[in-house]
Amino acid sequence: MSSSPLDHYESLKEAVKQTEGHDSDDVSDALRSVCAASFSFLQGCRPVQLTSQVPDKSYFSFKDRNNKHSRAVNPALFVEDFTLVDDFLNAVKTESFEALSPEDTTKACYTAAMSFCATVDLKKSGDKKSPGTFFEYLVGHLFSKRLGVNPRKQLKVLNLDMDAKLPTDFIFDLGQNRPKFHVPVKTSTRERVIQVWAHQRVLDGVYGTGRFSGVFVCMNETKTDKRKSEVTEICLPKQWRVYQLFVAQLKRIYYLDVPEKYAELNEVFPKIVVLPFGEFFREADELAE
Amino acid sequence: MSSSPLDHYESLKEAVKQTEGHDSDDVSDALRSVCAASFSFLQGCRPVQLTSQVPDKSYFSFKDRNNKHSRAVNPALFVEDFTLVDDFLNAVKTESFEALSPEDTTKACYTAAMSFCATVDLKKSGDKKSPGTFFEYLVGHLFSKRLGVNPRKQLKVLNLDMDAKLPTDFIFDLGQNRPKFHVPVKTSTRERVIQVWAHQRVLDGVYGTGRFSGVFVCMNETKTDKRKSEVTEICLPKQWRVYQLFVAQLKRIYYLDVPEKYAELNEVFPKIVVLPFGEFFREADELAE
Repeated sequence: MSSSPLDHYESLKEAVKQTEGHDSDDVSDALRSVCAASFSFLQGCRPVQLTSQVPDKSYFSFKDRNNKHSRAVNPALFVEDFTLVDDFLNAVKTESFEALSPEDTTKACYTAAMSFCATVDLKKSGDKKSPGTFFEYLVGHLFSKRLGVNPRKQLKVLNLDMDAKLPTDFIFDLGQNRPKFHVPVKTSTRERVIQVWAHQRVLDGVYGTGRFSGVFVCMNETKTDKRKSEVTEICLPKQWRVYQLFVAQLKRIYYLDVPEKYAELNEVFPKIVVLPFGEFFREADELAE
Repeated sequence: MSSSPLDHYESLKEAVKQTEGHDSDDVSDALRSVCAASFSFLQGCRPVQLTSQVPDKSYFSFKDRNNKHSRAVNPALFVEDFTLVDDFLNAVKTESFEALSPEDTTKACYTAAMSFCATVDLKKSGDKKSPGTFFEYLVGHLFSKRLGVNPRKQLKVLNLDMDAKLPTDFIFDLGQNRPKFHVPVKTSTRERVIQVWAHQRVLDGVYGTGRFSGVFVCMNETKTDKRKSEVTEICLPKQWRVYQLFVAQLKRIYYLDVPEKYAELNEVFPKIVVLPFGEFFREADELAE
């Protein structure tokens, strides 16, 4: 119980490696320990209000004793009581997904992911990798439990005289005559997002359009100007529409903290379905049909 | 003459901004000053041999008084006498491109680019942006002088009810019924290279396949393990082939220090033409037909 969040993170990495899967009880327990230790660590830090330039959203950051600040946290999604996260992770472990509403699921996931990310911001310097990897493990675990199948991270490309292995994001293969999901995971996108559409394009090209459903999972798009303590959201909706028209089609984009500019894409042509992550648990069976 | 390389770099940025072009004499002179000051700064540093894991290539790094090391430099391409760089930049300024062989052109460009990059490695900490921007300015200048037209960095996407501006890499438009070049520039690629093919795909989709010739310019793919003083080249030729088959077709890929693994792609299907950068000056008229 006295281990630090970062020690628990090391155990999580080991659990993912040992079990070669993302749906094991070991991974489930390790994820819970990371989240609980991080959440508890943040209780000893002071929340500091930030100036939000994002309409209808407020943000704060955690400040530690050395005056170091974490990334921006949305209090409408970050719960004050760890019980909700605990209930959610238990529901996932026992695969009783009906227990929670999509709204509570989104909050539980946001709190779980943000607890560790904010902790790394405070406890380490310049570590961008651990938050990204942790978020990937979290989403990998949730998808594999919800879909009932473990992901792969490599695909064979057979092309006559050429035999290459394509490293990919998560691939969840539900078996013959059922969909396969291509699931890229990122904490935020900025200018790198074209990769997501480009990977989908490669899969469409190699295996035929429609064989893989592209489902992109992302945390948020906030950016904090530390000097001004100001939070903005960096969004490029027009470019997303160009990519959706001319590179490939993504089936779903889930955010923990949905940027309004992207939510608006549900209403225009080409329609891009952007939803809070909790909705995935509700509609997964539908998507998997 | 006593200004530091970084001061000259600031003047270069100003010159590019002021002239809103890349082919002006001001840019030409500022580029020369950055290169000369950097080259001269490096003469006061000690070259230290590195262990090269790249077949048939050796590498060294510059070491300054504080024992700081620059990135890996290939002595077969980095000339010992600045005269060659000077002659080349003068030839470019007066648009007398026949003066130098492709081999000498590649060496002059490599020395010019590497002088500034190695200088930034030693004089600054964690500055990845300046080397990339400088290399972009250098290539932008060389292309605009050789093709006789200034680049654009934005394209309009007209798509019925949607009107978006697409930020792109350099676009050199030779005018009606002549080719347009799409020229991404990077110091190295690693896993980010799919962006280059994806941007080409967007242009093919928006304007029709073949309207833009994709010409990618890159410095090298070396990676130095500082602890072991060991240099390797990070290459993903099989993935390049998948991108060339399934994302878009690039017309040329030019390197200052061509990785052998990519040079081999000239010989297989799908053929990807990978050449030393100096060849561009020889074949530009042909490409522009």
